[in-house]
Amino acid sequence: MADTTVPTTSCNHTEHGYLTDKARYLARLKRIEGQSRGIHRMVEDEKYCIDILTQISALTSALQSVAVGLLEDHLRHCVADAARAGSDIAEEKVREASQAIARLVR
Amino acid sequence: MADTTVPTTSCNHTEHGYLTDKARYLARLKRIEGQSRGIHRMVEDEKYCIDILTQISALTSALQSVAVGLLEDHLRHCVADAARAGSDIAEEKVREASQAIARLVR
Amino acid sequence: MADTTVPTTSCNHTEHGYLTDKARYLARLKRIEGQSRGIHRMVEDEKYCIDILTQISALTSALQSVAVGLLEDHLRHCVADAARAGSDIAEEKVREASQAIARLVR
Amino acid sequence: MADTTVPTTSCNHTEHGYLTDKARYLARLKRIEGQSRGIHRMVEDEKYCIDILTQISALTSALQSVAVGLLEDHLRHCVADAARAGSDIAEEKVREASQAIARLVR
Repeated sequence: MADTTVPTTSCNHTEHGYLTDKARYLARLKRIEGQSRGIHRMVEDEKYCIDILTQISALTSALQSVAVGLLEDHLRHCVADAARAGSDIAEEKVREASQAIARLVR
Repeated sequence: MADTTVPTTSCNHTEHGYLTDKARYLARLKRIEGQSRGIHRMVEDEKYCIDILTQISALTSALQSVAVGLLEDHLRHCVADAARAGSDIAEEKVREASQAIARLVR
Repeated sequence: MADTTVPTTSCNHTEHGYLTDKARYLARLKRIEGQSRGIHRMVEDEKYCIDILTQISALTSALQSVAVGLLEDHLRHCVADAARAGSDIAEEKVREASQAIARLVR
Repeated sequence: MADTTVPTTSCNHTEHGYLTDKARYLARLKRIEGQSRGIHRMVEDEKYCIDILTQISALTSALQSVAVGLLEDHLRHCVADAARAGSDIAEEKVREASQAIARLVR
């Protein structure tokens, strides 16, 4: 737990409740893994193209939903904490989060 | 502007530099307006479908880029300021921003 | 319009009913133009950031919906017509449409 | 291979070269499966949020790229073939493809 040296700007997931949701994130990602395996099987079995596309859309939505959840946690813990600590790091965190958002939106 | 009563958590764009970039945002949105007028004209003139689609993609990219910029400003000023003020409002701001991100990502 | 010389592979919008929907497309694009003007005004009046983002999301959705409609018309008329004519142009049309889809999906 | 009864409008992947690329699709989907397993591991190991988001963006891009490829194949084989056969099924195929595109674009 290296983060204990810089508590307020730490993005310390354990302290800030990331762990609370961790089991839920892991369950969602397990399901996502299963979905991608399912798509692989559909192509292997030469399923109807449109049905494969429907599954890809569902998987993309599931991924985006996880991403938005992680971003919300990140804003709540890292960005807000950095701001609270009054540190210069807040500006860096904001820029970093914005770049992540830009990659998701594209 | 009503925001002057609650300076630290205000999202007071004028104070926090939103105005600095305001002219630039307005210029970009003016261009976006011109782009949408151009697409209208292309349909009117029955231009080639694929060329119209190319312009719609360009316009969508321009809009997303403005949105990400506004979000970054919002995180920097509203969310970080709310956190700095230590107010409960920070949690509300984070949730609100996350919902906006979810709408953009979809 | 030059397309009259190659009727079956022409993407001749007038013959194939593009015109039927043209008025509807123009009305939707007029509304889109109004929406982009509205966003410009919101920034000018320094409206709340999240409200501006909501409008940008709405405008993006409206644009994507027009794009999907145009693509559907394009597949129906240009791509299917080219295929029907048995021409080599069909392959080119498919590739062109796919590139347009890739730009929209990104 | 049920499709042999309706050869020209069949979306018969085997005949029309879907199989040619099948190995490549399977390899890409294998990689996608690996990427989603990697994201699961990153959350398990409590990696930095932004790094997880970067991987989610990369996975989303990989999925969209597979989707656009499958759509292109579908337009080339199913939609164009249906049109070539002059069948009413072409219209249905176009509508179905457009709905798949709408789901991907959203």
